[in-house]
Amino acid sequence: MSARATYADWIAVDWGTTHLRVWAMGEDGTLRAEAVSDDGMGTLGRDGFEPALLRLIEPWLGSGTVPVLACGMVGSRQGWAEAPYASVPARPAELPPVTVATRDPRIRVSILPGLSQASPADVMRGEETQIAGFLAQSPGFDGVLCLPGTHTKWVRISAEEVVSFQSFMTGEMFELLSEHSVLRHSVGAKSIDEGAFAEAVSETLSRPERLAQRLFTIRAESVLSGLGAEAARARLSGFLIGAELAGARPYWLGQEVAVAGAPALVHLYASALEAQGVSARRLDADPLTRLGLARAWATLRETIT
Amino acid sequence: MSARATYADWIAVDWGTTHLRVWAMGEDGTLRAEAVSDDGMGTLGRDGFEPALLRLIEPWLGSGTVPVLACGMVGSRQGWAEAPYASVPARPAELPPVTVATRDPRIRVSILPGLSQASPADVMRGEETQIAGFLAQSPGFDGVLCLPGTHTKWVRISAEEVVSFQSFMTGEMFELLSEHSVLRHSVGAKSIDEGAFAEAVSETLSRPERLAQRLFTIRAESVLSGLGAEAARARLSGFLIGAELAGARPYWLGQEVAVAGAPALVHLYASALEAQGVSARRLDADPLTRLGLARAWATLRETIT
Repeated sequence: MSARATYADWIAVDWGTTHLRVWAMGEDGTLRAEAVSDDGMGTLGRDGFEPALLRLIEPWLGSGTVPVLACGMVGSRQGWAEAPYASVPARPAELPPVTVATRDPRIRVSILPGLSQASPADVMRGEETQIAGFLAQSPGFDGVLCLPGTHTKWVRISAEEVVSFQSFMTGEMFELLSEHSVLRHSVGAKSIDEGAFAEAVSETLSRPERLAQRLFTIRAESVLSGLGAEAARARLSGFLIGAELAGARPYWLGQEVAVAGAPALVHLYASALEAQGVSARRLDADPLTRLGLARAWATLRETIT
Repeated sequence: MSARATYADWIAVDWGTTHLRVWAMGEDGTLRAEAVSDDGMGTLGRDGFEPALLRLIEPWLGSGTVPVLACGMVGSRQGWAEAPYASVPARPAELPPVTVATRDPRIRVSILPGLSQASPADVMRGEETQIAGFLAQSPGFDGVLCLPGTHTKWVRISAEEVVSFQSFMTGEMFELLSEHSVLRHSVGAKSIDEGAFAEAVSETLSRPERLAQRLFTIRAESVLSGLGAEAARARLSGFLIGAELAGARPYWLGQEVAVAGAPALVHLYASALEAQGVSARRLDADPLTRLGLARAWATLRETIT
């Protein structure tokens, strides 16, 4: 793929804690190639970023200089270069990026900032670009976007702006409890019992103060009455998501809601909301980051060309 | 210490998941010697229990047969021999133990059962013996005993019986979140800011549904405003304990309450309860298990001699 001319007009990069994803983009918005590696920012020292990026994009480089636009944890204080947070309210597609000094003259790297909120204190990095991608798909959206994941975000959007947001540690708690706690013996299954999930959501949504106690009943019922692994996994997930929905109620009650994330997780959140009478739009988050980077690139190009 | 006569009249054993503790006891209740090892039941296969026990108590054995009375996870299905749970209501000092077959004729090993509850489903192993020890110290206690730890227990006691109990996964969640989650970067300190703790307890006690969101603010404030490690640790502990107190309210509201555990943890629970107007007795749990085993031994001796 190497050639005298540059293969990509610009390169989009999603650089999180555990993975590096890159897309070779054409000026007209077409996707020409993509690649992924395990060189997440969590595994790299400051000097490791440029080589890790070049390993993936080398085949797309030519004689000129290619603009590279990145989002995610790569812009944190422990990342390649710090892109300070922009405070909400903010338009996620119009955040000015920071430029990173590189040794290789064939790339010109910019990193998009994350968003911060003073009270309640909150931060995001990477999700702001998913939000920009969502807004590219759904211009004029006025409502709440839920982005379930390790640190689930509930985001109020109006007039193309992020107005406010709240993060919940639900996903990380699920991982820790299912893999490292006493519950790991009970929740081995990968699939989930939907009835048990709905019941568990309903329990902690109405009584969120019982969360830590309900979690232990999963262990107790495994021991006492042989609770199955699918039901146990459903209850762990349901208790945590139910408690989250209780805390996020001001975000979804009476609002237009969309949920974007991994499809299985979107299904759980959307069906839990449906049981509360909220009909949420369901979206796969996978293409949103690239769409958001393309939108940010369109803004950036005007300022640098 | 080895002698022709047996050095111990009987041997008390607390055998948990991570540790094995043994005490050489005199018939009159005196403590003659003690020892501890890392041979917790979690690290042993079924054939490993007898050798692990003998390694510690060998010096106390003589020509006769010594009764050994054990409590804790050693009696679980994955332990040395299963001692099935006794259902509440139950008198914790009068639970009939199961006898374990041993190769060495110098020991006769019995294991005390744990307690179970059908609804809400709950189990304990080891704590029932601490409760027996507590009742030996406080005969006629009528109220609630809180045993904070990995899986904190709230126990209703009346007329020397455990009437009901509830477990909360608070301690295990604290360990997982402080050591394995994104918050591990924030909560490095070992000491705790008491003012920040009290404030955090109050927040989730009144709004337990916000737990997963409040937890993430620890991360956000570390990043945005340099929240100190002592304050961060205090808030993590306070948010979790506050949410637990919200769930355990029927157990402590208007009740006579005692808290027994590791002194630092007892201090946190008791001061959180004091802020709610509940003056809880504070006890070190360390001697309670041995006291409880002595009480169970006194009952058992009558039946076997």
